[in-house]
Amino acid sequence: MKIGFDCASHTEVAEILSLSVSPNDIIYANPCKAPSHIRYASTKNVKKMTFDNITELYKIKAHFPDAECILRFKAHDPTPSKNPSEGALYELSKKYGVTIDYSREILLQAKKLGLNVIGLAFHVGSGQRNVRTYTRHIEEARRIWEIAREVGYTFTVLDMGGGFMYNNFEEAASAVNTALDNEFGDMIEQGGIDIVAEPGRYVSAPAFTLVTSVIAMREEREETGEKRMVYIADGLYSNINAAFWPGELTYPTVVKGKRTYTAKSTLPTSSASSDSGIEVEEEDNGSMDQEGGISTLMRGDLQEYSIWGPTCDCMDIVIEDALLPKGIEVGDWFVFKDLGGKILISLFLYFDSKVIGGMLTITGQ
Amino acid sequence: MKIGFDCASHTEVAEILSLSVSPNDIIYANPCKAPSHIRYASTKNVKKMTFDNITELYKIKAHFPDAECILRFKAHDPTPSKNPSEGALYELSKKYGVTIDYSREILLQAKKLGLNVIGLAFHVGSGQRNVRTYTRHIEEARRIWEIAREVGYTFTVLDMGGGFMYNNFEEAASAVNTALDNEFGDMIEQGGIDIVAEPGRYVSAPAFTLVTSVIAMREEREETGEKRMVYIADGLYSNINAAFWPGELTYPTVVKGKRTYTAKSTLPTSSASSDSGIEVEEEDNGSMDQEGGISTLMRGDLQEYSIWGPTCDCMDIVIEDALLPKGIEVGDWFVFKDLGGKILISLFLYFDSKVIGGMLTITGQ
Repeated sequence: MKIGFDCASHTEVAEILSLSVSPNDIIYANPCKAPSHIRYASTKNVKKMTFDNITELYKIKAHFPDAECILRFKAHDPTPSKNPSEGALYELSKKYGVTIDYSREILLQAKKLGLNVIGLAFHVGSGQRNVRTYTRHIEEARRIWEIAREVGYTFTVLDMGGGFMYNNFEEAASAVNTALDNEFGDMIEQGGIDIVAEPGRYVSAPAFTLVTSVIAMREEREETGEKRMVYIADGLYSNINAAFWPGELTYPTVVKGKRTYTAKSTLPTSSASSDSGIEVEEEDNGSMDQEGGISTLMRGDLQEYSIWGPTCDCMDIVIEDALLPKGIEVGDWFVFKDLGGKILISLFLYFDSKVIGGMLTITGQ
Repeated sequence: MKIGFDCASHTEVAEILSLSVSPNDIIYANPCKAPSHIRYASTKNVKKMTFDNITELYKIKAHFPDAECILRFKAHDPTPSKNPSEGALYELSKKYGVTIDYSREILLQAKKLGLNVIGLAFHVGSGQRNVRTYTRHIEEARRIWEIAREVGYTFTVLDMGGGFMYNNFEEAASAVNTALDNEFGDMIEQGGIDIVAEPGRYVSAPAFTLVTSVIAMREEREETGEKRMVYIADGLYSNINAAFWPGELTYPTVVKGKRTYTAKSTLPTSSASSDSGIEVEEEDNGSMDQEGGISTLMRGDLQEYSIWGPTCDCMDIVIEDALLPKGIEVGDWFVFKDLGGKILISLFLYFDSKVIGGMLTITGQ
């Protein structure tokens, strides 16, 4: 096994090359590239690049005729479902990929242009919950592999993309290995195939834990006190941008002195996951009083909270439906784990290159 | 009339003070402030600050007892509606403000703490389409003004917040002036009231025009060619973050040589507004051929397009339903007008201070 880099833009390619990575170890895996970015890749000899449309082939022909092209085909979930806990968090195939039916046509076009197509790429979607989808698309890859052979191409690269989550990685890896053995076992044995995978989310999700403080509190309806609103020092526009995306955020743990309590949802189905991975510990350190508040102890009744970010924007809400102990006060702390999945992926320019080691960010009062 | 500054955070206050603005001309208009931010305001003598909950009063009492507090009350639309073209783009009152019923209670609490409450604030929501909502809340302000008098406070400040759009500003200003005359005419005449408004969106929306190029093209289903996907050099994660928010984005104008065409929606109701304010001009400059493409002329049939940003993220879609001429090619340009409403508001740290003059950003191929 070796490590390579999936880059999606000129900036990412430049960043990786600046780390003295060989251009051979980079796949420029954006099927719709700006012409100037293709020219840049050409000057740096970053040959491997994906495509999924005819226009891209014309651009590659014009700007980098020696490129080693990789056809991206469209992924689809084996069990399409409206259930937010199934399928991928992000269906990248809405944006990229050709259908299997069209693959022969586009390969014939590539052949006509005299371009060198060396393999296949797909992506089951970012944050894929159904590991069977890997199996299905590895099978599909094998079918297109044969179509390519008929068109006159001998493929050597299979880029199976990412989507690997932190919490189902072993299951996904096992499904992938079985499917690869079944479909590409002969080629793997002969050393005739390079298999590429991008476990970005798996690597980055647990790399980021946020500790942030409670800065303000109020009742949603002061008259009834039924639901409390808690305002924390971080939010959507800073380190908790995962709150934008359904399924990205785990429920936080609130920390008061030495006591901790991990939030649960008040709803039967929720936009956030309740597995924060933090052990619940409810010790009393005997000093619960907090600045400016009432020394309510963190035990006993739970109540409904909404959790808000610090900016004046009403879109800056972190969680609408958290069940937490009564008595949370200004100065208490919230811990959000595994925030790296989206926050780091969102920083596209730095993806792959800056995710090194663990990160702990503290945003205070 | 004079110009002052609405700040929402420690950073904004610091930024404005660095421009040699007097602390008297700043309202720290965040009703839920971090304790450290209140302490900072205290050291800088930025006295005017909003609040909407008891906890905030305790914090102000502890950290800045001489503050000049301004009570924020909750705005609500006079014609609640699910119609996305009515009401505010952002209902800020989901996050802030006390009900009129609770205003007496919280003012009594403030009195008990010996705090100085000098006025009222409300915000009808950012991007308010119903100008009657200003009228209604100015009327409500007058009622709370009287409640305050009964509690023992003589108010002198009315901060009516923002929400002023670029395209209905005169209508909104007229409604505001009439309501102010009706409700506060006596005080205005005697010079006993400072009226504050925040026309941030009105100022910033037209300040930002984006010109960006087409970098890639394909059919949504290659087999049918019914809908085309166009990829541009800018998107959600860069200058077109307005695409996140319903109603923020105007349809772009596509420019090919000297010809322009302004997109319309293919849908009866759409997430984007079709009034781009750009004049349609359809001259032929005789040189339509574009790099790498076919020299289809931009006239005749229209067809459906989706417009995508350049990153590999499938969430990076700008418009799903644009009606545009056939024959858009790599190298053509898209012009997005009035992008400053959200993009600048999103840059909270810089709001108010950096919106100076016009901005034109070009993101190329």
